[in-house]
Amino acid sequence: MSNQAVEFLFYLVPLGSLLALFYALYLYTFVSKQEAGTDKMKEISAAVREGAVAYLKRQYSGVALFFVIMFVILTIISFMGYLPKVVPFAFLTGGFFSGLAGFFGMMTATKSNARTAWAASKSLNSGLQVAFKSGAVMGLVVVGLGLLDLAIWFMVLKYAFGASIEVITATMLNFGMGASSMALFARVGGGIFTKAADVGADLVGKVEAGIPEDDPRNPAVIADNVGDNVGDVAGMGADLYESYVGSIVATSALAVAAGLGLRGVMIPMIMAVIGVLASIIGTWFVRSEEKAEQKTLLAALRKGTISSSLIIAIVSYPLIGLVLGWNRIGVYGAVLAGLIGGVIIGLLTEYYTSGTYKPTQNVANTAITGPATVIISGLSVGMLSTFLPVLVVCVAILISYFAAGHGDFNMGLYGIAISAVGMLSTLGITLATDAYGPVADNAGGIAEMSGLGKEVRQRTDALDSLGNTTAATGKGFAIGSAALTALALIASFTEKVGVEATHKMEEIVKAGGTAPQWLEQAKHINQFLDITNPQVLIGLLIGGMLPFLFCSMTMQAVGRAAQSIVIEVRRQFKEITGLMEGKAKPDYARCVDICTRAAQKEMILPAISAIIAPVIVGLLVGIKGVAGLLAGSTVTGFVLAVMMANAGGSWDNAKKYIEEGNHGGKGSDAHKAAVVGDTVGDPFKDTSGPSLNILIKLTSMVSVVFASFILTNALFK
Amino acid sequence: MSNQAVEFLFYLVPLGSLLALFYALYLYTFVSKQEAGTDKMKEISAAVREGAVAYLKRQYSGVALFFVIMFVILTIISFMGYLPKVVPFAFLTGGFFSGLAGFFGMMTATKSNARTAWAASKSLNSGLQVAFKSGAVMGLVVVGLGLLDLAIWFMVLKYAFGASIEVITATMLNFGMGASSMALFARVGGGIFTKAADVGADLVGKVEAGIPEDDPRNPAVIADNVGDNVGDVAGMGADLYESYVGSIVATSALAVAAGLGLRGVMIPMIMAVIGVLASIIGTWFVRSEEKAEQKTLLAALRKGTISSSLIIAIVSYPLIGLVLGWNRIGVYGAVLAGLIGGVIIGLLTEYYTSGTYKPTQNVANTAITGPATVIISGLSVGMLSTFLPVLVVCVAILISYFAAGHGDFNMGLYGIAISAVGMLSTLGITLATDAYGPVADNAGGIAEMSGLGKEVRQRTDALDSLGNTTAATGKGFAIGSAALTALALIASFTEKVGVEATHKMEEIVKAGGTAPQWLEQAKHINQFLDITNPQVLIGLLIGGMLPFLFCSMTMQAVGRAAQSIVIEVRRQFKEITGLMEGKAKPDYARCVDICTRAAQKEMILPAISAIIAPVIVGLLVGIKGVAGLLAGSTVTGFVLAVMMANAGGSWDNAKKYIEEGNHGGKGSDAHKAAVVGDTVGDPFKDTSGPSLNILIKLTSMVSVVFASFILTNALFK
Repeated sequence: MSNQAVEFLFYLVPLGSLLALFYALYLYTFVSKQEAGTDKMKEISAAVREGAVAYLKRQYSGVALFFVIMFVILTIISFMGYLPKVVPFAFLTGGFFSGLAGFFGMMTATKSNARTAWAASKSLNSGLQVAFKSGAVMGLVVVGLGLLDLAIWFMVLKYAFGASIEVITATMLNFGMGASSMALFARVGGGIFTKAADVGADLVGKVEAGIPEDDPRNPAVIADNVGDNVGDVAGMGADLYESYVGSIVATSALAVAAGLGLRGVMIPMIMAVIGVLASIIGTWFVRSEEKAEQKTLLAALRKGTISSSLIIAIVSYPLIGLVLGWNRIGVYGAVLAGLIGGVIIGLLTEYYTSGTYKPTQNVANTAITGPATVIISGLSVGMLSTFLPVLVVCVAILISYFAAGHGDFNMGLYGIAISAVGMLSTLGITLATDAYGPVADNAGGIAEMSGLGKEVRQRTDALDSLGNTTAATGKGFAIGSAALTALALIASFTEKVGVEATHKMEEIVKAGGTAPQWLEQAKHINQFLDITNPQVLIGLLIGGMLPFLFCSMTMQAVGRAAQSIVIEVRRQFKEITGLMEGKAKPDYARCVDICTRAAQKEMILPAISAIIAPVIVGLLVGIKGVAGLLAGSTVTGFVLAVMMANAGGSWDNAKKYIEEGNHGGKGSDAHKAAVVGDTVGDPFKDTSGPSLNILIKLTSMVSVVFASFILTNALFK
Repeated sequence: MSNQAVEFLFYLVPLGSLLALFYALYLYTFVSKQEAGTDKMKEISAAVREGAVAYLKRQYSGVALFFVIMFVILTIISFMGYLPKVVPFAFLTGGFFSGLAGFFGMMTATKSNARTAWAASKSLNSGLQVAFKSGAVMGLVVVGLGLLDLAIWFMVLKYAFGASIEVITATMLNFGMGASSMALFARVGGGIFTKAADVGADLVGKVEAGIPEDDPRNPAVIADNVGDNVGDVAGMGADLYESYVGSIVATSALAVAAGLGLRGVMIPMIMAVIGVLASIIGTWFVRSEEKAEQKTLLAALRKGTISSSLIIAIVSYPLIGLVLGWNRIGVYGAVLAGLIGGVIIGLLTEYYTSGTYKPTQNVANTAITGPATVIISGLSVGMLSTFLPVLVVCVAILISYFAAGHGDFNMGLYGIAISAVGMLSTLGITLATDAYGPVADNAGGIAEMSGLGKEVRQRTDALDSLGNTTAATGKGFAIGSAALTALALIASFTEKVGVEATHKMEEIVKAGGTAPQWLEQAKHINQFLDITNPQVLIGLLIGGMLPFLFCSMTMQAVGRAAQSIVIEVRRQFKEITGLMEGKAKPDYARCVDICTRAAQKEMILPAISAIIAPVIVGLLVGIKGVAGLLAGSTVTGFVLAVMMANAGGSWDNAKKYIEEGNHGGKGSDAHKAAVVGDTVGDPFKDTSGPSLNILIKLTSMVSVVFASFILTNALFK
């Protein structure tokens, strides 16, 4: 393919972005047109929506303050000469688009919860269609906005500033930090909100007052439903926006390092465009007969994701051959390794967490001897479940590196990065299957609260349980791609350090001076990052500890926030007369407000710690320390995230397995023990675990942005 | 100091060894001379002793089989030219002495349990004296046998074989693997035994049958007491023997690499000899008035450890100055960093796990809202408690490296290694304060079972609770020194790879060939171990996952073994008529036998996995992969071990805090919730957590032994 043709290819990126966004609009219109059900349902849906919007408003205004402060800091640093002047702006847009993706997804989800419940009163398939399409809006908005942000900056830098491809990719790498910061706040804040409401509602409602889940008499019930939207939808949207954009910009930066120039940069971008098309086509396969059963529905969803993967697997081959040249077709091996690796990790996640397989059934069996054995066995399953995903990622790394690079270091790293892009290329549809879960969950709540009848509730439960399976697969993708992206970002970081050092040395030499030795080392930093170097070791140790510290903070935050909900719900039960008899209405808004405030307050410390850790370590222990920190936090973060997500999922489904009538069913001692496991698992799988995905990338992003500053100002060089 | 004087110094090592062993014999005689109490007490004590001996016999014969197999493998490998012929024998003696240390410690402990109970019936101080002296036997036997093994090999190699100092240190490094393997089996097997008996006895006895702890009607009660001896005494003895010897041999190997020769090798050995003296003197400070209270006793124990530390701090200064030369006095900074770092980590452990401080009180507070919140808060405390110990180790690394090396790489690594020796030099007495805990625990059990009266039980409880505090400090030392030793061992590993590669290249060149590129790389392996190298990354990921896998296996093993005890205890309650009324005796021996079999069977898989992991990774991903694996497992293993030990300790003491009358005291709902936490914490703090200390060193030891074999035969070089 000629150079001109490659440049021309770029225009597919804004086109793909618009295609995704317009198709999302089309699906949104479809969802909006559905009936929202009875007045009662509309009322509840409106309350949930109102609470969610109120939360996001507060969260975004809090985060806006953070972004203003960071903007000022970055501007100062850029005026000190450590950053290009455009970076602070790139930082802002990254955060803005990431937040926007979450916002749109959440608006759609809150619109479709009542509509899904109403559609489910007709048939299971109708319910699925509404919920899935609302999930697809989120999926397409995330990829559409991601491509839009990339396209805008690419065009501005190239055509308005006339920047070289090196400068373009370096700048784009910086805006990842904005997206990551936003994602971390959204995930942590949303995660604290949703689990505080969930745990708080359960502890008083189910355990103390003995009323069922989603009972309208429970004052925290609306907050619980709001939580699904702000945590599992808005939080996840921001999270995966960040993964998606992060993997593309990291690959682009490594493309330049590997000497592939614009051609190498185009590959991840065009793969993303193909991904948009493949996802849209995939959504067409998600249909089923009106009277379909749950199994058929799962098959329908699977058909959608598998066909998308196949399209990408087929189209990437000629794309890479034509753009990079057929002599570099080995890069295709990296794409396949990523695609297949993602699928396998998803299946493994399902195996360890689904009630239809041994591991989770064993956890359910230990419930017979009480809560202690449930906790021990759940933690064991979580720990055990790290083994195979780690091996899969290792094999993907090995294949990607050698297939793409044949031993060439930079080409190999490009291969690892592109495998993350391959894994995430089907994001449009995998995110759709993932985001539909909370919608179904909400629909169930609305069906219960508005008294739609047992059959409808059974259908929404079926949809919800289907959502748990797809969510498990989605989580596998999220964490697998996070690990690969983080590794690519570490490579981008060391690459950037080398470039900065070379630049600084040239300046010193030009001014007639001699460059100090540490600058000479930094130029070839890779050669000095050996794991027996004490600075690297210290970084590794601190990095390895960081995910534990982070999880401790987020879990304690959930605990504290849940405690305040417990107190409030108890108060309302006591003070509002006639509440338990259904004669008086609880004060839902107060619970929502308490969760909002608590999440707002509690998200600050963990998020800020994650952001400043690499800078502090860098200023004290130098660039080598930072590199060690990134490697350490990626390794521990990845393993811990898999462990927490799977332990949490396994406890959740062990409880469901017992509820299906095993070991005495609902209300038995075994069930009570399993509920303890499920409650412990809540912050594991929905707050701390998924936040780690972002943590490991954010630390890299921050390090990239502050690389030059750290390089010059470190205490130990 | 002249070279001759330095050589002469060596004779202090066998002398120190004999001093330690004879002083241990003296203390043992003292303990033996004490009265063993009533016939009932003698009977119980004999039953415990019998069970413990039966277990150790079975364990040692199982482990002997493993040692025979490994001996054959090592012999084959040595005949293939990958190892010196003497290594298989060194491997055997390491294992033998490690096992012997555990055996002697356990024989003393089982002898002194009834004697401690009887002495406690006189006064608190008398009880302390017997228990502490029995702990001191263990401490001195460990250091005495360690020095003996070192002295014998040093003399055999130097005088019988005329080996150079390089060959001597390289060979001694290899016998660490024998000690580590033995330690891992002892820790894992003993840990499974003790917790299976403990959890099993509690689950049926306390929870189902409602009888108190240590009630003679409980068929698992003797097994529980046996467990304290085989797990907490024999297991810990083998464990710390391994740490002690490992830190000395790693330092010796790095001394040669740093060009310090015999002088550098003498430093850790003579420091150990000083440690023997300091520990013996320290034991003299552990005295108190007859009517002393618990606080005074703790102060007495503290006085002992602190005076030992001071002696070492003072005497090391002239030692280093005279032997290494005053220009290398910076090495003394490393000794201090290790000594002080160990004390700080011990204090931090106490802070996070003691009921007198906030963290554990907070865990107790969350018991009010049930077991789920107890688990979440305990895990949070455990995770949070990793932060400061990691920082302390990092600071110790930084100080040791720069104080000893002033930027010189090999001298810096020697510094890191010597800081571990500094931390462990007071082992004789810290282990004494640690090993006395299980003796006090057993004494309490015997007092209860033989009906010695409430006052005696209160005294043994006070001794036991004091033991918990000192055990926390001891655990801090064990894990901190394990991290530093593991880092030194990683450095020894890469050092050995370089030496082996140089050797192989010389052979090839001598034979007229040209050395391949991978051999050239291996010669300077440090320069190729950068953390962005995919082989290193893969190693890091697998190494980071290994501790999780290992913990999963050991926790599940405890769960399964406890389950079989539960079934047996339930059977005896049902089938033995008159048991609950105290008219019939339970079949204690059967429970001991079940635990023995279970521990025996369950210890194999985790131990073998730990041993073969580095070899498999090495053969597939090469030396770089192994180095990554070692770094990854050290980082995650260290952090996870701290987390598990402290979470477990915190749950234990949160339960005790409630039992002291807070939140409703014994029998309240809060207490029941806290018991759940304590049960989860049992395998955390006594099986999985402490085994990780050994795991991280064993992987390094195995890698050192197989370095040459892996280097030549790896698939990816």
